[in-house]
Amino acid sequence: MAKIIDPWGSTMVEDYTKLISDFHLEEFDFKLFPNPNRLMRRNIVFSGIDLKIIADSIRNKKPFYVLSGIMPSGEKIHFGNKMVVEMISYFQKHGAETYILVADLEAEATRGISLEEARKRALNFHIPAYIALGLDPKRTTFYFQSENIPVMHASYKYSKKVTQAQFEALYGNADPERIFAALTQVADILYPQFKKRMPGIIPVGVDQCPHILLTRDIVNRMKKEKFIPPSATFHKYTPSLNGYFKMSKSMPESIIELPEDPKSACNKIKRALTGGRDTLEEHRRLGAVIEKDMVFELMKQHLVEDDKELETIYKKYKSGKMTSGELKEIACKKITKFMLNLEKGIKEARKNIGKLNFVKK
Amino acid sequence: MAKIIDPWGSTMVEDYTKLISDFHLEEFDFKLFPNPNRLMRRNIVFSGIDLKIIADSIRNKKPFYVLSGIMPSGEKIHFGNKMVVEMISYFQKHGAETYILVADLEAEATRGISLEEARKRALNFHIPAYIALGLDPKRTTFYFQSENIPVMHASYKYSKKVTQAQFEALYGNADPERIFAALTQVADILYPQFKKRMPGIIPVGVDQCPHILLTRDIVNRMKKEKFIPPSATFHKYTPSLNGYFKMSKSMPESIIELPEDPKSACNKIKRALTGGRDTLEEHRRLGAVIEKDMVFELMKQHLVEDDKELETIYKKYKSGKMTSGELKEIACKKITKFMLNLEKGIKEARKNIGKLNFVKK
Repeated sequence: MAKIIDPWGSTMVEDYTKLISDFHLEEFDFKLFPNPNRLMRRNIVFSGIDLKIIADSIRNKKPFYVLSGIMPSGEKIHFGNKMVVEMISYFQKHGAETYILVADLEAEATRGISLEEARKRALNFHIPAYIALGLDPKRTTFYFQSENIPVMHASYKYSKKVTQAQFEALYGNADPERIFAALTQVADILYPQFKKRMPGIIPVGVDQCPHILLTRDIVNRMKKEKFIPPSATFHKYTPSLNGYFKMSKSMPESIIELPEDPKSACNKIKRALTGGRDTLEEHRRLGAVIEKDMVFELMKQHLVEDDKELETIYKKYKSGKMTSGELKEIACKKITKFMLNLEKGIKEARKNIGKLNFVKK
Repeated sequence: MAKIIDPWGSTMVEDYTKLISDFHLEEFDFKLFPNPNRLMRRNIVFSGIDLKIIADSIRNKKPFYVLSGIMPSGEKIHFGNKMVVEMISYFQKHGAETYILVADLEAEATRGISLEEARKRALNFHIPAYIALGLDPKRTTFYFQSENIPVMHASYKYSKKVTQAQFEALYGNADPERIFAALTQVADILYPQFKKRMPGIIPVGVDQCPHILLTRDIVNRMKKEKFIPPSATFHKYTPSLNGYFKMSKSMPESIIELPEDPKSACNKIKRALTGGRDTLEEHRRLGAVIEKDMVFELMKQHLVEDDKELETIYKKYKSGKMTSGELKEIACKKITKFMLNLEKGIKEARKNIGKLNFVKK
């Protein structure tokens, strides 16, 4: 598993179908869920675990939760975070108790960011950005890992429930740093169940799959505790603009950050790898190779909400009526609007940051 | 290292001299210290690390600390704990700030004892027993691991400072449970320095050596923090009554517990392996093989405080004037007195348990 899915690496996943079969994941069927969002409808959320129990909870209005963590490094997030927020927002709107934790202990240990600095960044940027992207703060419980004593206690307790060999099978190694990070995440994932057992859904990029599997393993080894094994949705990587990889910080030119100056974002789009043909004549004749087009993929994943609009663009581009230059222009307009809205939303959200519902020490 | 020194096993250490050279430990020289106690004078404390800085602190009346942890499983301790308390008491009397922590997180994770139960046991038995054995509660700071937030934070932070390979070299494996326990112990050991850097001495059985070495390694990898690497004293194992092993819970008949009913303790002594000869005639002629005599070793380590008294017994037994039956009788009398005093001391100490100086959450 470690060779393919590595939560700390930037591995490429070319064949999501293979991934699903290799790791016995479920294919995601958006018809299970009412009013599926763009990511669900377009198979960007392509897989999951134990989805039916969540769909049932929604349908029967039974308690369930959605949870995600914020890593408060830098003052930027990326489109992967945006997908997480959109999934949280979907489940939140469909009745989920919502939990957002700030992984300040992990930030301190693995990135050398002090707890104080992590807190400042989370309150000043990450949480406002999540709110700007659709999180409803009034219906969300927040906490800092460093202040959540039950989570710290539980992570230590769970250390007994997994062996070095099991850890290595999931993560490829058993470095102490990873063990602390992973077991604290397991405790985070189960935290909403500490008071009341209920199903929970964790929306993650597929690279985070080992944390979900580890949590489910540990739940299975604590049968007496009667935790409900957490469910998950897995979404695809946002394409790197220079090829079909996960966006990676080691290739800054290939990533659009959130927020980013619209001009800079447009410049990156202009330099992106597309499926346009070598000459205009050829392009008109053969049409674009859309599956290799990073700009189209970005529009499909993030910039075009309306399915019909996307289909129109698809047809025009595929048939050669639209050039990749024209496509990039549309993308640039859309990303400009998006970034301006995001900046505005962050500023707005910051104003009410004192009113958030934090779990107290 | 793991094959010989294993803090979680019951390995035998026949040759302490070899141990010292293999792991570059210091030989213990009691002349370094004023008024050495019985364990120091008799080379039962046989080794240490960075002893001079502690001796200097005592001589120059500079701040230093002594720290130890209580594992609140069962309602019994053993002679190994008694040695720890005697060393703590020695340093406490010579000016050390004294810290006793209750390893309730470790008890919960590794022994399945709830935090609540661990607290009850520590307050009802372990701490009173430590006081009965010589700890001065008025000059001691106590804490529970589960309530010490800075310790929990630090253990996570230190996880970055040690690799899986380093951990395996010290402990033989990198099981998550051991990693949590070891790194929490590192944080415990450094805790008295969180506010003020100063030398510290950790009195332990030689099996705990890896924790000291790990702590020193981690301190060395955090040079900026300017922690003083902790010093340690190492004492020998208390002999198992059926042979020269560490006392082990897997051989209950070979262990005298603290407290234990004096009759039961005497019966164990009566059945103990001695250095007496096969016949009385032979014994009178050749004398006892004292180095194989577990009862004499127990008296030397624990039951005879006065050096001259011990020497007299030694000479009589060695020369054959005293039989092993007579030796056992003396031992039985002494252990009876000791156990009655201990029981009384524990009851007495329990009365003032509400007045202890606990670090607050």
